[in-house]
Amino acid sequence: MNTFGQYFRVTTFGESHGPAVGAVIDGCPPGLELSAEDIQAELDLRKPGQSQLTSPRNEPDRVEILSGVFEGRTLGTSIALIIFNRDMRPYDYSKIKELYRPGHADFTYQEKYGRRDYRGGGRSSGRETAARVAAGAVARKLLAVKGIQVVSFARMIGGIWLEEPEPRVGGTPGMAGNPGEVARQVAALRSRIYGSKVRCPHMKTAAAMAKAIQAAGEEKDSVGGIVEVQAYGVPAGLGDPVSGKIDARIAQAVLSLGAVKGIEFGAGFRLAGMRGSEANDRFGVGAAGQVLPETNRAGGMAGGISTGLPIICRAAVKPTASIGKTQKTVDAAGKPLDLTIEGRHDPCIVIRIVPVIEHMLNLVLLDLYLAQAAIQGWAYQS
Amino acid sequence: MNTFGQYFRVTTFGESHGPAVGAVIDGCPPGLELSAEDIQAELDLRKPGQSQLTSPRNEPDRVEILSGVFEGRTLGTSIALIIFNRDMRPYDYSKIKELYRPGHADFTYQEKYGRRDYRGGGRSSGRETAARVAAGAVARKLLAVKGIQVVSFARMIGGIWLEEPEPRVGGTPGMAGNPGEVARQVAALRSRIYGSKVRCPHMKTAAAMAKAIQAAGEEKDSVGGIVEVQAYGVPAGLGDPVSGKIDARIAQAVLSLGAVKGIEFGAGFRLAGMRGSEANDRFGVGAAGQVLPETNRAGGMAGGISTGLPIICRAAVKPTASIGKTQKTVDAAGKPLDLTIEGRHDPCIVIRIVPVIEHMLNLVLLDLYLAQAAIQGWAYQS
Amino acid sequence: MNTFGQYFRVTTFGESHGPAVGAVIDGCPPGLELSAEDIQAELDLRKPGQSQLTSPRNEPDRVEILSGVFEGRTLGTSIALIIFNRDMRPYDYSKIKELYRPGHADFTYQEKYGRRDYRGGGRSSGRETAARVAAGAVARKLLAVKGIQVVSFARMIGGIWLEEPEPRVGGTPGMAGNPGEVARQVAALRSRIYGSKVRCPHMKTAAAMAKAIQAAGEEKDSVGGIVEVQAYGVPAGLGDPVSGKIDARIAQAVLSLGAVKGIEFGAGFRLAGMRGSEANDRFGVGAAGQVLPETNRAGGMAGGISTGLPIICRAAVKPTASIGKTQKTVDAAGKPLDLTIEGRHDPCIVIRIVPVIEHMLNLVLLDLYLAQAAIQGWAYQS
Amino acid sequence: MNTFGQYFRVTTFGESHGPAVGAVIDGCPPGLELSAEDIQAELDLRKPGQSQLTSPRNEPDRVEILSGVFEGRTLGTSIALIIFNRDMRPYDYSKIKELYRPGHADFTYQEKYGRRDYRGGGRSSGRETAARVAAGAVARKLLAVKGIQVVSFARMIGGIWLEEPEPRVGGTPGMAGNPGEVARQVAALRSRIYGSKVRCPHMKTAAAMAKAIQAAGEEKDSVGGIVEVQAYGVPAGLGDPVSGKIDARIAQAVLSLGAVKGIEFGAGFRLAGMRGSEANDRFGVGAAGQVLPETNRAGGMAGGISTGLPIICRAAVKPTASIGKTQKTVDAAGKPLDLTIEGRHDPCIVIRIVPVIEHMLNLVLLDLYLAQAAIQGWAYQS
Repeated sequence: MNTFGQYFRVTTFGESHGPAVGAVIDGCPPGLELSAEDIQAELDLRKPGQSQLTSPRNEPDRVEILSGVFEGRTLGTSIALIIFNRDMRPYDYSKIKELYRPGHADFTYQEKYGRRDYRGGGRSSGRETAARVAAGAVARKLLAVKGIQVVSFARMIGGIWLEEPEPRVGGTPGMAGNPGEVARQVAALRSRIYGSKVRCPHMKTAAAMAKAIQAAGEEKDSVGGIVEVQAYGVPAGLGDPVSGKIDARIAQAVLSLGAVKGIEFGAGFRLAGMRGSEANDRFGVGAAGQVLPETNRAGGMAGGISTGLPIICRAAVKPTASIGKTQKTVDAAGKPLDLTIEGRHDPCIVIRIVPVIEHMLNLVLLDLYLAQAAIQGWAYQS
Repeated sequence: MNTFGQYFRVTTFGESHGPAVGAVIDGCPPGLELSAEDIQAELDLRKPGQSQLTSPRNEPDRVEILSGVFEGRTLGTSIALIIFNRDMRPYDYSKIKELYRPGHADFTYQEKYGRRDYRGGGRSSGRETAARVAAGAVARKLLAVKGIQVVSFARMIGGIWLEEPEPRVGGTPGMAGNPGEVARQVAALRSRIYGSKVRCPHMKTAAAMAKAIQAAGEEKDSVGGIVEVQAYGVPAGLGDPVSGKIDARIAQAVLSLGAVKGIEFGAGFRLAGMRGSEANDRFGVGAAGQVLPETNRAGGMAGGISTGLPIICRAAVKPTASIGKTQKTVDAAGKPLDLTIEGRHDPCIVIRIVPVIEHMLNLVLLDLYLAQAAIQGWAYQS
Repeated sequence: MNTFGQYFRVTTFGESHGPAVGAVIDGCPPGLELSAEDIQAELDLRKPGQSQLTSPRNEPDRVEILSGVFEGRTLGTSIALIIFNRDMRPYDYSKIKELYRPGHADFTYQEKYGRRDYRGGGRSSGRETAARVAAGAVARKLLAVKGIQVVSFARMIGGIWLEEPEPRVGGTPGMAGNPGEVARQVAALRSRIYGSKVRCPHMKTAAAMAKAIQAAGEEKDSVGGIVEVQAYGVPAGLGDPVSGKIDARIAQAVLSLGAVKGIEFGAGFRLAGMRGSEANDRFGVGAAGQVLPETNRAGGMAGGISTGLPIICRAAVKPTASIGKTQKTVDAAGKPLDLTIEGRHDPCIVIRIVPVIEHMLNLVLLDLYLAQAAIQGWAYQS
Repeated sequence: MNTFGQYFRVTTFGESHGPAVGAVIDGCPPGLELSAEDIQAELDLRKPGQSQLTSPRNEPDRVEILSGVFEGRTLGTSIALIIFNRDMRPYDYSKIKELYRPGHADFTYQEKYGRRDYRGGGRSSGRETAARVAAGAVARKLLAVKGIQVVSFARMIGGIWLEEPEPRVGGTPGMAGNPGEVARQVAALRSRIYGSKVRCPHMKTAAAMAKAIQAAGEEKDSVGGIVEVQAYGVPAGLGDPVSGKIDARIAQAVLSLGAVKGIEFGAGFRLAGMRGSEANDRFGVGAAGQVLPETNRAGGMAGGISTGLPIICRAAVKPTASIGKTQKTVDAAGKPLDLTIEGRHDPCIVIRIVPVIEHMLNLVLLDLYLAQAAIQGWAYQS
């Protein structure tokens, strides 16, 4: 299964060192203004080589739109997005052909398929996520029309935490009523985040994170971290009860990233230690007189359906598996060996996962929005 | 969406206080011996009223098989399972008709659908999970044929932790080679778990957990906890790369339970704080001479595909939302009020979620097993 | 796969001689007034024993709603419909256990699954369609709200044709503008159809058809025929290009009935013999000044999307396979034998398929309507 | 929905005059030898400009494989196939921008999406089927491994019929036992078919068909016809009962071609006029002593599941909608006008649909084969 979504369906393809990666979007509503530049801007946020803290692989990651857009607007037909791979150096991959790198999917692909593309991870490479970001950029434009804004950032890297409550958009919960103001604040927050090399909006914390990454890098090692993603302007009612709960859908999307090993919503694992009287979000009255939860320990949802408060979610990202440090392992025949991985790797993959997680949320939220639009577009009147 | 799975598809129906809950299974392989008793045994593990620590609602939860089984074996056609609701007391639900209980889905269902079944949670009630357990019991029987065994238990309740490494089945990782022994050990572990009122296999810890629940119950409050689930005998190769990763699929299934607010695999959130050299599972040689990971920080998977080691996963369960303690909230019109929820509720829902999570894993693992069977049944030979 | 539809998903279950048949509907919009009686009225149109021309099996086919409806309206949650089987006579099916009846699915079920329910066809029995009619009755109520009306009838039975153009609802094509009048005319047509024992609205033709059936029945043989289905008030724009074309979707639904062996739209097979200048529907101007096709050789669609003209479709129904006449065949071991099928069978299954096809159209059209509602509910404004 | 299949999923993209058309295949088993040349050979069978009887548009239709193949074999990951459009002449499409061509989907796309790509049909163009053929070529290679061979041809063009029983492969029904011989005979038949300009294997009939096309072309008109497709070596047991019947799935696939207006299986519409005693396929004993149907009026299936006999199916193809002859119609504003369509069109689209239908069958049969492989790969043993 290389497809995400039910209404806004995104199918990706491409191996790390094959000719191209790309995505086909099926179910995009017609009439949206869309250009390659719209998508490029988002792709540029995850591309390698942006600072000394990321992989020096030099991929321009230029996206082309092959179908589904005519005279600058979407047609409603399937949209094909393609990114040709450029910087495929003649690295000698025969070295890793016969062994399984610790922490990588070499072994499991081999077990599953009986063969694999051993050049740089093949299909399991993080490079595949470029296609997701391209599709997410389209979802982002559609959500913006409805006043929905997603933003993500590094909450922790290498043990350095950005303390809560920062950052929060808007003064009060449930501020969905003012989409223009939300959009403005999110744009400001995003420029602080992407202005930081480590994708953390708080300068001092960001500097400490960068130091932690450098320290690991100097020891040819890597660090992990926690990415937080927040969604503003999400109306109440998104998510399907039972199997399509909003948190279930987000969890599937975010854990479909190879480096993510855990996810939590709202107060998350801390809720497990609370009492009910403490954990429950009690109801109050919002600025516009509407009933809504006064607190948001649940992270913007109840029973798997959005409440109208911001969606809050955090993902645990493991440290980059590819490290220069020598590791003990065995080859495919079981012979012990000392492995030293060469090549161009990110000492902290969190930095580049930040925009990817944001776009996975965009994909899920748009899909659920369209599902609800089918019910509301129907709107049985009696 | 009330359907789980792609090959072994389970569609559930039923409201808490309607005539019945049930499930239709589509895609069950033919030829499996199956009786209502097989399913009943699993349902009995989650039914209410089993001790003073759970809701006294008196539901026998008798399951009937309406189709898909003939002469004691599955036909390959759709299997309908039904559980008629019995103990629907004439409780006066009109009290909660006009308000939204904190921590419940009343508000979000109303926002989504413009109406709701306000009797005891309706579709959002935990009672819906009885149907999942019934379907999971069928999956469990099928998995057992292939040597796959799932078991879950309370890792933490009310702040009381069962310390690792207990419990673990088998002496060494990758012991998939001896399915009979795995089955025997899992059966023994399960009887310790379900012999405990709190579903914790360690007696002393279980007693402390029970005490924490009682303490909360006496204050008309509730506690949450952490459920761990382990799967043994899972062959390498299950899970689809990209969108159908084994962790992504499990996360969706487990977060589709209303009370679950987070999930992690293997060392989970702790991995975020590790260095790569520490986090990577290096490869070694198993008892049978086969190559496999020597450690299992990743929880039995790499790149979203199973490695052959045990699957390890933990879920954060929030405290029961329904508490007797008076809570401040507002009614549907926004008028402040003091809410005291009456009725028969569980002071700690963790106890009854333990078997449900186990069966959600059964559903996911069987689905992925069948997906892989399609590839292997094909097995292109050159 | 026992599921129809993508938005309005219907999963059926049940064998001919098992405890029950039924359906679970997932994706029904909330707020529809719905009672068991609404569904019963449609079920009564296909139940056996209505005249000497149909099987005397005495099934009251009483439907019960087990979930998804509260206080007389749909909740938006899954709706379970169940029909318990009653008249399961102690017929000695052991006779057919060891052989494959000509024209039946006994052989293929055995080949596919390695076993089968040999009592009266099991899952392959026409009885399964009762569940589809029950679900279709819900779709029909929803479509009526949007002014869409489906009607079907016997166009040919046993070589006796109802000549065109009769029947047609409305004076002019594209009369979607007056839903009340369409509903009135369709209701009148339906009562003529179901007032006829052979489901043909033209009395004299109906009498000739009945005679043909009786003639075959007297020879312990059976006849087939052609069912036509027409849908009025379908707005332009339903159907997805490429794989979800409206004709492709209808064809799948109608050919999912075991006795149907062919389908055509508009002038159908006759179009294959025409020239382009004759076959093309040219555009003109409707009563309300709107552009629309002037002729309807294409049967209400172009490029797989509805045009706003009536959908016209015809299905070829083979004669009932179960006949009393002695047939030469072999048993499961290959030994030649003379087979005489006893039991209660329909000499002409066309009669009972008429309402089933109507409801298959209801299911497809509602599904496509909801798909389009998602796009239109979204309605990107620029 | 631009996706076909559930196990072997094919998603297509591309407009007639956009940069490219293509397909992404998800679910292809690993290990298949596959090159662009394998696909090119099939694409060449449908490309335009092969004789004076087809459109002179000069498209080389060169396919490239962008992913999913490594070292000459499939990886199991998604396969992207792309065909860049070349011959996009600066035809002045502004003429048809403001009107709807009779028999085309211009009107319905406009109604559905509120906009359309008016250059040569855009997404509704037959050019989209090049992507299906490319994917079907992969399916064909996989099926050949299992001894399944599909072949299609013109049964009728412009009123000229190829009389039955020709052509038939093999001497007796159920000759699945000798796959090598079936493959040889099908290859011979295919070369006779594709050696004919009109895709009819009988030379004299082919000449008459060509004459009928020329006659229509000289009058700037077009003709339709009937395509027959046959599948050999299909094992018993393919097809899912109820919604996934083999005929239902084939019908959906074949009617997803814009020019197809009807379909029938085996004796098809003629069965509607038969009696049961005549229509039933009675069982006998095959060459290898196995039980199987002696006749094949049902077209290789019973109850929607394959019997092991050849699958026989016929599709009605309407005449090409684009004709040079002047047609009366109205423009988008309703003003009457005389339309004369210029450009490069096929006077008989049947010729180019022949290979497309063959490949739609390949896609369906492979999908059902994999579904059955999941059940059989599971193969519960008791």
